[in-house]
Amino acid sequence: MKIYVIGHKPSDLDSVASAVEYTEFLQRSNKYKDSELVAAVAGPPNKETQFVFQKFNVDLPVNIDDVTIGPDDHFILVDHNEFDQRSEKVDNEKILGIVDHHKMKVDFKRAIKIDLRPLGSTSTIIYEEFESAGIKPTNKTLALILSSILSDCVGLKSSLTTGLDSEIANKIAKELYIDLEKLTFEIFKAKSDIEGLSPEQIVKKDFKIFDFGGKKVFIGQAETVESEALLNQKDVLINALKEVKSKEDVQYGFLFITDILKINSQALYTNEDEKKVLEQAFTTQGHDRIADVGPRMSRKKDLAPEIEKIITSK
Amino acid sequence: MKIYVIGHKPSDLDSVASAVEYTEFLQRSNKYKDSELVAAVAGPPNKETQFVFQKFNVDLPVNIDDVTIGPDDHFILVDHNEFDQRSEKVDNEKILGIVDHHKMKVDFKRAIKIDLRPLGSTSTIIYEEFESAGIKPTNKTLALILSSILSDCVGLKSSLTTGLDSEIANKIAKELYIDLEKLTFEIFKAKSDIEGLSPEQIVKKDFKIFDFGGKKVFIGQAETVESEALLNQKDVLINALKEVKSKEDVQYGFLFITDILKINSQALYTNEDEKKVLEQAFTTQGHDRIADVGPRMSRKKDLAPEIEKIITSK
Repeated sequence: MKIYVIGHKPSDLDSVASAVEYTEFLQRSNKYKDSELVAAVAGPPNKETQFVFQKFNVDLPVNIDDVTIGPDDHFILVDHNEFDQRSEKVDNEKILGIVDHHKMKVDFKRAIKIDLRPLGSTSTIIYEEFESAGIKPTNKTLALILSSILSDCVGLKSSLTTGLDSEIANKIAKELYIDLEKLTFEIFKAKSDIEGLSPEQIVKKDFKIFDFGGKKVFIGQAETVESEALLNQKDVLINALKEVKSKEDVQYGFLFITDILKINSQALYTNEDEKKVLEQAFTTQGHDRIADVGPRMSRKKDLAPEIEKIITSK
Repeated sequence: MKIYVIGHKPSDLDSVASAVEYTEFLQRSNKYKDSELVAAVAGPPNKETQFVFQKFNVDLPVNIDDVTIGPDDHFILVDHNEFDQRSEKVDNEKILGIVDHHKMKVDFKRAIKIDLRPLGSTSTIIYEEFESAGIKPTNKTLALILSSILSDCVGLKSSLTTGLDSEIANKIAKELYIDLEKLTFEIFKAKSDIEGLSPEQIVKKDFKIFDFGGKKVFIGQAETVESEALLNQKDVLINALKEVKSKEDVQYGFLFITDILKINSQALYTNEDEKKVLEQAFTTQGHDRIADVGPRMSRKKDLAPEIEKIITSK
C-alpha cells in the first residue's frame, strides 16, 4: 500500500514543498511504517516551485497524473482541504489526514487526523511538528520550509504573517546562512515571470470572483518584484481586463499590481464606477485608469474587504 | 495682530513641518492678509525634526515658549486638536482653525474652520490644499511635506498609509530627485537616535497607557532602523519596563522594538502573564522574555487592538 502526500491544484510552492517536507517527517518519525510514503504534486509545478527545487537541489515529487492508483492506496492532503482544490485522483474515502492553514470546508463520513493551524504557511506547521517530535529536518527540507514561508508570507511582509512564521524563517535563514531578502527576491522573480504570457493570461494569473451584496466582482492580482514592466503594459492589460469582465459577466473588475519589494499595490480599472470604488475604499485618486492604493498586499485581508465595504454600501 | 500656526506637544516632524507648510500656504493664498502669520513649535523640536530642517536648509519655526502672546494674537492648530496636546500658550478662545488627521475631541463655544481628513499625515492634507488652490509649493516646502509623510507613514509601509499619501510622496520624490528609501532611512536613523538615553527613557520614549476591560496596559514602542542595538540591551530594558510598570501602576507592560526597514516588531515582556497575552494575540512564542510578532508596525492599528482582544476576553 502506498500513501501519497499531496498538495492542491493548481499547485504552488507551499503545496509542493510541504508534501516533500511532510513525507520526510512521517518517514523519520516512523509513522505509517508498513506503507510506502510518496510525495506527490497535483499537476505540473509552477515556475516558482521549479526554481526553488532546482536551487536547493531537491527532486520534484511525482506528478499524481502520471501514477496509477491502486485499490489499497491512500492520501494525506497538505496545504488544502476543500474538495474543489483536490486532484481528481484523490478519493474522498481514502484520505487519511490533512495538514493545512486554510479555512476548512470538508464533509467526511468518518474521523480522520486533521491538523489545521492559522499560520502563514503549511510548511510552518510542519516545522513545528518536527520540533515537537524532536527531529531535526535535513538541510534540504529546512531550505524548502524557509522558501515556502517566504513565498506564502511575501517575504514576511504580508499581513497574514504570524510571529511564528517570522521567527522560524529567521532561525532557518541564520542556520543555513541564507539572506532572506535575496531569496525572497529570487522566488518572486521566478513567480512573477510573465514571459510568454498574453495580457489575458496576466490578468487571470491569480484572480478570484466575489459576490459582494449580489454584485459579481473580479479581483485579479499580479505580485511582482518589477512592477514597472507591468505598468508599462497598462493599456493592453486594461483592454484584457475589459474582455475578462465581459466573459466572466462581472460588474466590477480590478487588477492589482503588487510590488512586493516596494510593499505597494496599484490598481488598474476600466471605468468611472470602478474608479469611485477604489477612491472610496483606499482614500486615493485614480488618474488615467490607475490608482495607487498604498502598502496593501493581501487580497484576502487588505484589498477585498475594503472593496466589499464600498460596493455593499452602494 | 499675529496668528501663530502651531503643532502639538511634544512636537514631532509632521507637527513642526506642517506649521511651516501651512503658514506658506496661507500667506501665498492671501488668507488672513491683515495679520502676520507666524509658524511656531510647541517646545523644542526633536532630533528627527532637526535633521530634516537642516538637511533641506529650512529655518526652524519660533518656539512658542519664547514668545509673549499679545491680547489680539490668535492660533491655528495643525496636526492636533485635543486640549491635552496643545501648548499651554494656546488660548481656546483664540483658535481660528484646525487642520488635522487625528480623531477629534474638542469643545468650542463657536464655529471655527476645521479641516480633518483621514490621511497618513497633516502634510498630505496641506499638499492637497495647495493643489486645490492651484498654488505650487516651494521646493523646500515640498521636501518638508515628503519627509513628514515618510515619517508618519513609516516609509509608506505603515498600515495607516492611504493611497493618496503614497501617490503624493512618490510624485514629490520624482520631482525633487529624492530616493524615498534613503530619506526614510535617514529620518528614522535620526528619530531612533537613542544615544545618551537611559533605559527608562527608551522605554518611555513613545508610549500609551490603555484601559482594556478595566485593566491598565502600558504599550511602549521604539521604532528603529537598527533593532539589534536595542535588542542587545534587552535585559536592562526589561528591568526598566518593570520599574515603569510599577511607577505607572499598570497590570501589563510591553515594549515593542519595531524595525522599520525589516518591517517587523519584537515585543519585550516581564512575566508569564504578558507572555501568554502576546502568544495568543500574535500566534507566536515567547522565549527568554522576547516574542517576535511579525510584520506589525502600527500600535494604533496592528498592536493594541490584538492585545485588547485577548486581555478583555480573560
